[in-house]
Amino acid sequence: MIVAIIGIGLIGGSLGITLQENGLASRVLGVDTNPVNVDKAIRRRLVTEEMSLSAALQTADVIILATPVDVMRKLLPTLLSGISENQTLIDVGSTKEQLLDEVADHPNRARYVACHPMAGTEYSGPEAAIPGLFDRKTCVIVDREDSAADALDVAHRLFRSAGMNVSYLDRKAHDLHCAYVSHISHIASFALALTVLEKEKDEQRIFELASSGFGSTVRLAKSSADMWVPIFRQNRDHVLDVLDEHIEQLSKFRTQLIKRDFDGFHERIERANEIAKILQ
Amino acid sequence: MIVAIIGIGLIGGSLGITLQENGLASRVLGVDTNPVNVDKAIRRRLVTEEMSLSAALQTADVIILATPVDVMRKLLPTLLSGISENQTLIDVGSTKEQLLDEVADHPNRARYVACHPMAGTEYSGPEAAIPGLFDRKTCVIVDREDSAADALDVAHRLFRSAGMNVSYLDRKAHDLHCAYVSHISHIASFALALTVLEKEKDEQRIFELASSGFGSTVRLAKSSADMWVPIFRQNRDHVLDVLDEHIEQLSKFRTQLIKRDFDGFHERIERANEIAKILQ
Repeated sequence: MIVAIIGIGLIGGSLGITLQENGLASRVLGVDTNPVNVDKAIRRRLVTEEMSLSAALQTADVIILATPVDVMRKLLPTLLSGISENQTLIDVGSTKEQLLDEVADHPNRARYVACHPMAGTEYSGPEAAIPGLFDRKTCVIVDREDSAADALDVAHRLFRSAGMNVSYLDRKAHDLHCAYVSHISHIASFALALTVLEKEKDEQRIFELASSGFGSTVRLAKSSADMWVPIFRQNRDHVLDVLDEHIEQLSKFRTQLIKRDFDGFHERIERANEIAKILQ
Repeated sequence: MIVAIIGIGLIGGSLGITLQENGLASRVLGVDTNPVNVDKAIRRRLVTEEMSLSAALQTADVIILATPVDVMRKLLPTLLSGISENQTLIDVGSTKEQLLDEVADHPNRARYVACHPMAGTEYSGPEAAIPGLFDRKTCVIVDREDSAADALDVAHRLFRSAGMNVSYLDRKAHDLHCAYVSHISHIASFALALTVLEKEKDEQRIFELASSGFGSTVRLAKSSADMWVPIFRQNRDHVLDVLDEHIEQLSKFRTQLIKRDFDGFHERIERANEIAKILQ
């Protein structure tokens, strides 16, 4: 099939190379407003050719929208209006509620499948794209009952060919669960980086002492502001809810230190250890 | 040389196997109050033989104290009193101020070198011990001017043979910097695990969505309470100081979300991104 990818960053670029390598895509059309990204994507063979948005819309069997989520909100209604009954539109964004509200009554809504491949790294842009990024990860399909059966089938084939397991949620549940697991991790990591940068003025010390675990806890703090701020904006209420809980949990540790309640501290660490069972 | 290791967990066990493999230790005497640990350590060849504490003290050239830091405080004065001028005592603990205050006036203080190899994983016990754990990591030697030249030389040879770079700090600076970089990372990770366990009752969802970065941010939350509570107890004041800053940084994100100040949010993420330059 011919696949168009709009926005050739980490996710779009990784899909482009993966779908070529597994044989699902005969051509991958790259659409990006940034000519540097297009150039890098072609030289790294993430896409087979560059194309304008309107030409790609007329050529592709499947159009994958892989821009930051604020750009998605602007592009999605126009794209939906421009596609035919033989085409499928897929997005790969991290927030869904506002996006799906936007096109709830669109006459072509059934041609669109809202997807969230739960894969990524702390890096962004086509230079970070890698084949195999999606292997054995989960792709969440959101509000599947609003998509046509054949469009769903295309999405299933596409993500399964990339090695993904498919799971289903409605849009409210998706945004809630992502705030609880993914979005709060990023805020915690950004805040930890800021904490250490504020307290520890000696950069060489940070580097030397980082092998003690700081490196992994702060890994997500390298993530792109351009990608993440629109996510926090669209998922603000759920993120605030879980952020309140996180501040509360840290404040409890603080109180226990102040009161020298080390037995209570020990109990709460053992409770935190239970996360290991879930992640295995 | 003959090396005795008191406490055969992740660090003690990894040192035992590493020093055998690089040829520095002809024998590694394992001392542990837990017979299960000793049994595992011998079967995994982390040590060459089991020995009682008193017999090991009479046999070893170098005695490495690798217990949790509360046990170190109890054992260190007694061990120092029992060693001769030809022996070197080394500890590998994560906190130093209280430990070194304890033996500041000990007549054998010069035979002791306070060390902190900055290496570890979220796992503990002899089953987590691995050769190569210390490779290209930093070992901090603390208050080196209080150790005899030949004892320091032994410590240098030992940690350099394990592939470590050596750095120096006084005990106050060591505990401060470790609170700022290492100890706060652990508290942040414990708190994040508790947050997600509290908000997200659906364990399958946590598992499915964890590939989005949650896994690495929460990695340290698997760490042992028995090891970490004594560290937080001994380094309480510095940890409280940096924990206050961390709660403050999270509260600023909270305020920005409430006020919908997404430009300010963007700026602070870009500032957090600077951690990448230091860690490279």
